[in-house]
Amino acid sequence: MEQLRVDLGERSYDIKIGYDILANVGEYLKELKLGSKVLIITNELVDSLYGREVEQAIKDAGFGVSIAKIGDGEKYKSLDTARELYDQAVEANLDRSSTIVALGGGVVGDIAGFIASTYMRGVNFVQIPTTVLSQVDSSVGGKVAVNHPQGKNLIGAFYQPKLVVADVKVLKTLEERQLKAGLVEVIKHGMIWDEEFFRFFEDNREDILNLKPEAMIYAVKRSCEIKAEVVAQDEREMGVRAILNYGHTIGHALEAITHYQRYVHGEAVAIGILAAAKLANKLGMLDLADVTRQENILKDFGLPVSFTELDNDDILKSLAKDKKVQDGVIRFVLLEEIGRVVIKSDLPHNIIREVLEELRG
Amino acid sequence: MEQLRVDLGERSYDIKIGYDILANVGEYLKELKLGSKVLIITNELVDSLYGREVEQAIKDAGFGVSIAKIGDGEKYKSLDTARELYDQAVEANLDRSSTIVALGGGVVGDIAGFIASTYMRGVNFVQIPTTVLSQVDSSVGGKVAVNHPQGKNLIGAFYQPKLVVADVKVLKTLEERQLKAGLVEVIKHGMIWDEEFFRFFEDNREDILNLKPEAMIYAVKRSCEIKAEVVAQDEREMGVRAILNYGHTIGHALEAITHYQRYVHGEAVAIGILAAAKLANKLGMLDLADVTRQENILKDFGLPVSFTELDNDDILKSLAKDKKVQDGVIRFVLLEEIGRVVIKSDLPHNIIREVLEELRG
Repeated sequence: MEQLRVDLGERSYDIKIGYDILANVGEYLKELKLGSKVLIITNELVDSLYGREVEQAIKDAGFGVSIAKIGDGEKYKSLDTARELYDQAVEANLDRSSTIVALGGGVVGDIAGFIASTYMRGVNFVQIPTTVLSQVDSSVGGKVAVNHPQGKNLIGAFYQPKLVVADVKVLKTLEERQLKAGLVEVIKHGMIWDEEFFRFFEDNREDILNLKPEAMIYAVKRSCEIKAEVVAQDEREMGVRAILNYGHTIGHALEAITHYQRYVHGEAVAIGILAAAKLANKLGMLDLADVTRQENILKDFGLPVSFTELDNDDILKSLAKDKKVQDGVIRFVLLEEIGRVVIKSDLPHNIIREVLEELRG
Repeated sequence: MEQLRVDLGERSYDIKIGYDILANVGEYLKELKLGSKVLIITNELVDSLYGREVEQAIKDAGFGVSIAKIGDGEKYKSLDTARELYDQAVEANLDRSSTIVALGGGVVGDIAGFIASTYMRGVNFVQIPTTVLSQVDSSVGGKVAVNHPQGKNLIGAFYQPKLVVADVKVLKTLEERQLKAGLVEVIKHGMIWDEEFFRFFEDNREDILNLKPEAMIYAVKRSCEIKAEVVAQDEREMGVRAILNYGHTIGHALEAITHYQRYVHGEAVAIGILAAAKLANKLGMLDLADVTRQENILKDFGLPVSFTELDNDDILKSLAKDKKVQDGVIRFVLLEEIGRVVIKSDLPHNIIREVLEELRG
């Protein structure tokens, strides 16, 4: 098992990354000296696959365990679901020393974290992410949230977990589409921060897609490391941390106008990444060769790089509502080369429109 | 105008306390260099009294201003109201640099603060408290929340404002019942921290109840000072800060089982204070003379010190659900003498029952 410390002063925590380590979760919790009650928040599917193993491990370590299940999918990351979870937290008699464990992907992690951050003004939070995306992204950075009809993650907080347990073995049960979409965020960390890590994906496509333990543990760990480095510099996302949103500006807009129904998050981000690459190139910042490398790797990993049917005006309108907009200015994260990133504001709308046209499949 | 700095590192902020200072609010906001959009959250009554003056002041300072009004009363401090306010924040096109201004009492401050703490994971928050209680209590300490049917403030966060503006002139329009209930929390600060400040209320009852500016500015300022001292030592309420909950353990239970309908918050706290005083006395910690001084001052300020009709079992059941309970242990804040406080756990239930019987009017 590999371990990574996310250094945030008194809010520091460990990420444990390994293969087949779910049975140790109870012991990990015990080391943290938490209160005696644990509420596991998960969904039907993940519960059926891993719920019993995790529940038993935590019970064996002496905790009282309750389980709350939410529906599967982004649409359940809502205030309505949050309300049900608050009720279940009350039902479970959670108190301030209790712990909420998120067992699942990004949706479960985000909403469970939001509940943990707001229930009794904050209880302990532990993440057991079960998708690639949540292992490398949602579990580092302390961003928790629910969606609003007008915008993804519009209601949320910054709230750090006490521990993250990333077991790459569980990725085997992912649907291929989910796996590929999740890898976008891993590869993204190479794009913005570490050209060598980007190359690792160009060179090890097969091992990664076949989930070879060593390759996956390395990919998850290095990805968390990069994200942790960035987050440690900017916990509350006032500056540098925004670079993690590479591909997310247009990605979020695509998700929003399709009501989070058409795309898996990573797919929308993949299109958003190519959009950002093309924007950077049109602005004369990024070589065409680096646009092509990004396009190729996205295609190699079976990700969408174009869209159909959507209206440019709807996309632009949605962009203006994005929570990354500050005082009316839309900001884009753009590459200067693979591994080097800048933030640009005030891009001409006609260039954005041009790029959207090029992405239309 | 008096000014007080609440020292919380990078989350430090000022409290401005004065008489007839609402017209300056726009200038105060300008000094903070916030984004251009402001959403004022208030209620119908406060809006009709002070809304125009505050709105105009903020507009005159160059901000774009929207107003959202909530219903009057604790029952509107709910997730339902929060949902409406999120919608209005979206409607007002707030972004991360925007500011939410709470114009009103504790209910408005708590829910507006909760929205500010969670909208886009946190926007700027400014408080203009318009009741005694909110001027001395809700506005210092960063506790924001909404209620859950099973418990007051069960859903919330710790979130510091950028500024608090306490204008004691607005207290003139309070109903007498609200004024008196609010004074409980002011006097409470004397009880737990400063015997001399407690004596100030024994000696200046008339000036306080008649809202003489000097007396009120002193009372509000000293009270905020005491609370700020305590909060600075314990921002997230892990230890010493709990002493501010003097009278609140049983107070909250009384509010909860009467569904926040029967008591104004301070009234429930008044009964809770006498309960705590009697408990301390029965445990041999506090002289009867100090119980009597507390009872007398509560009576002098026209506050309830007994209750009728309520069931002891309901009260005890509600106590066990209080969010101040940790791992099943109910904690009480008790005085050793006026100005000196301790926290006790595991009080025998029969002593709590005895005190409840004595308080039955």
